[in-house]
Amino acid sequence: MSTTGKIAPISGFPEYLPDERIVEQRFLDVIRETFELHGFSSIETRSIEPIERLSAQGEDTDKEIYAVSRLGGGDEDARWGLHFDMTVPFARYVLENSGKLSFPFRRYQIQKAWRGERPQEGRYREFTQADIDVVDVGQLSPHFEAEMPLVIADVFRRFPVGDFVIQVNNRKIPGGFYQGIGLTDVTATLRIVDKLDKIGPDKVRALLLESGATDEQASLCLQLAAIRTEDLGFVDQVRALGVEHPVLDEGLAALADVIRTGIRNAPGTLVADLRIARGLDYYTGTVYETQFPGYESWGSFCSGGRYDALASDGRTTYPGVGISIGVTRILGLLLGKGLVAASRSTPAAVLVTLRDDAARDEAVTVATALRRRGIACEVAPSAAKFGKQIRYADRRGIPFVWFPSAGESGDEVKDIRTGEQVPADAQTWSPPAADLAPAVTRVGS
Amino acid sequence: MSTTGKIAPISGFPEYLPDERIVEQRFLDVIRETFELHGFSSIETRSIEPIERLSAQGEDTDKEIYAVSRLGGGDEDARWGLHFDMTVPFARYVLENSGKLSFPFRRYQIQKAWRGERPQEGRYREFTQADIDVVDVGQLSPHFEAEMPLVIADVFRRFPVGDFVIQVNNRKIPGGFYQGIGLTDVTATLRIVDKLDKIGPDKVRALLLESGATDEQASLCLQLAAIRTEDLGFVDQVRALGVEHPVLDEGLAALADVIRTGIRNAPGTLVADLRIARGLDYYTGTVYETQFPGYESWGSFCSGGRYDALASDGRTTYPGVGISIGVTRILGLLLGKGLVAASRSTPAAVLVTLRDDAARDEAVTVATALRRRGIACEVAPSAAKFGKQIRYADRRGIPFVWFPSAGESGDEVKDIRTGEQVPADAQTWSPPAADLAPAVTRVGS
Repeated sequence: MSTTGKIAPISGFPEYLPDERIVEQRFLDVIRETFELHGFSSIETRSIEPIERLSAQGEDTDKEIYAVSRLGGGDEDARWGLHFDMTVPFARYVLENSGKLSFPFRRYQIQKAWRGERPQEGRYREFTQADIDVVDVGQLSPHFEAEMPLVIADVFRRFPVGDFVIQVNNRKIPGGFYQGIGLTDVTATLRIVDKLDKIGPDKVRALLLESGATDEQASLCLQLAAIRTEDLGFVDQVRALGVEHPVLDEGLAALADVIRTGIRNAPGTLVADLRIARGLDYYTGTVYETQFPGYESWGSFCSGGRYDALASDGRTTYPGVGISIGVTRILGLLLGKGLVAASRSTPAAVLVTLRDDAARDEAVTVATALRRRGIACEVAPSAAKFGKQIRYADRRGIPFVWFPSAGESGDEVKDIRTGEQVPADAQTWSPPAADLAPAVTRVGS
Repeated sequence: MSTTGKIAPISGFPEYLPDERIVEQRFLDVIRETFELHGFSSIETRSIEPIERLSAQGEDTDKEIYAVSRLGGGDEDARWGLHFDMTVPFARYVLENSGKLSFPFRRYQIQKAWRGERPQEGRYREFTQADIDVVDVGQLSPHFEAEMPLVIADVFRRFPVGDFVIQVNNRKIPGGFYQGIGLTDVTATLRIVDKLDKIGPDKVRALLLESGATDEQASLCLQLAAIRTEDLGFVDQVRALGVEHPVLDEGLAALADVIRTGIRNAPGTLVADLRIARGLDYYTGTVYETQFPGYESWGSFCSGGRYDALASDGRTTYPGVGISIGVTRILGLLLGKGLVAASRSTPAAVLVTLRDDAARDEAVTVATALRRRGIACEVAPSAAKFGKQIRYADRRGIPFVWFPSAGESGDEVKDIRTGEQVPADAQTWSPPAADLAPAVTRVGS
């Protein structure tokens, strides 16, 4: 079709060039492979949900929902919106299919979501999330709370994101602590302390005093939030504050279990950070955030937590725990800052050249033989001069150029990076393993 | 969160259970792998386009576009809709990035699209398409028209879709033929003949006569449309009708090239079918449709063609050729009719059992060792009786159950299908290759 009208990017709806897309694909492949190695099953949910379900969280983000309606009308009974995360649709999917799923249900979900936020660094209006959750019926065993960050650490071990720290807390620690010092409105206190990163300790103290806390209560809240240890030291540091409450004890024991499991299975990746709260009300136990040191201003790249009721149909409640990788935010950093790059812009490892137009059949036969053995290739688009055909490969980063019937003994293949050209047989030749697929590597490392 | 309100599927927005999703994933993997072996680069475009761009085709499908708007307002200057295919966004992407792409540009695109159609057999309102296109600047070499169906045949060779026939025609054949017999309004004639499958030859004849054709002209149109050969026989059959026109000659030569290439590289998959027209106006050369014998009522599962102007910015025109696999339609058939199934509902090949709760560390160590060697597994959720843990595996189709420190010499692993239990070491044991990932097979074959 003829395309007319303005051609322009839309802010907050990122698109990649082919070489950047190869980086994204590799990251998504690593995420999926890791999730599957850990025994999570994939599901995908439809992109839309009834708006009343999306806005059931009752947050002030309702106005950020993208509503969907058919241009020609119809469907008048339905008010739909694009989902803004995977949690709402997953909860609905669990209720809808509860009779057909096996619990505890371990699922992963890698999909696009949409949110009408103001686009800025690390914030997009169309973005990809990669979630794992374990959901059970009635009760959920706490060991799953220790498992989630290990899966994330395994993903980041397999892809060059650079340094990362998974910060873990347990909602019961501040919850029990605040009750122990006589601050009974736990949610309000949590909301104020959650602003620490944004407004700093002095302003948090002022807000706490304003909300009715005494000077000593406010100090204790700030002292608790300042505790951060890579080992189990946080337990003694909390104890040293002299506050007693059974819920605090539960929280400390639970967080100690998560940190202990982390030290054993993914040393150096978890930190107990008692400032972490997560904004969302539905978390009831462990909560997770993830920072990349040096890029704290981007916010958390991977977050989640434990909730006692992911979903409920009135009779049955489904508790769960989950964590979500902000794929687009991570790629926004890695590609935006040029930290990671692909070695070529096409999957093809080989370009099969054309001696003349009549040689196309012969070239296609070579290409077919290579493909049958898993070697991605393409045939030159035209029988231009060999120099031009080599430039075609070079421009795309294709490392090998094949010359059918080039030598006395038959075909030859040239590594255009070194210039080395050797006899080759399409039935047996393979490129070095490192050249089979595009390499995705940390730049400058 | 607590989820309240109606829980129900939305017609035309299909969702799969985990074992069905495994079938979908395998199909998408095969498609992607095949496209990449043939040297196509992946891109993804944003889900939305300006509505005026989506409706630029000027068809009566405009009312089927889903418009998108932010619930809280804002973005008032923008009128966006969800894309209904990959062609419109790809054309825009090519124009937007023309300076950064290398031409001829071979790209694939596997994404969801949305169209507010009445849901029915094979028709969905949210669906996945898998497209390949080759687009060039100014001129596009005709050999790409012969290449497209070979890629599709390669996809279908690697996934158990069952029998299929790729029907090929060239728009220039009916175009030149109609002109040769004096029917100058080619488009109108094509539109009438395109109804053959729906209304039959008698009604098509009546419509042709109504439009001003003579009895003899109408007969010749119907005779042309009835020609269908697996070899080059169609050329002589057309010649036997005694019509002469230079455009007809071009079309016959071009289609003969496509069929000849198909016979050589993918024998038994292509058929020259002179009835195929494709509804869309922008095709100018080869056109493709694909039928699964026995399921003709579902329509074409894979379609496309050559267009002289995929996109144009006024100065430069980008001709192309492409073909699109209707992934959701094919899965609707294969899953809906139970023709293909997955052997399990989880990627896990092994369940590591728990002797007691204190043995979890040991079990996690086994699981970690298996995962490092690419074996997907999970640890039993609780130290229930072994019988219950085995049922947990059985319900999900997990073929192997691991018992840490079970025998005198150490761990043992049991194939729960045969009951055979043998000593095993997590550092060296592997399941048979066929059990490593879920098998996806034709049912009853």
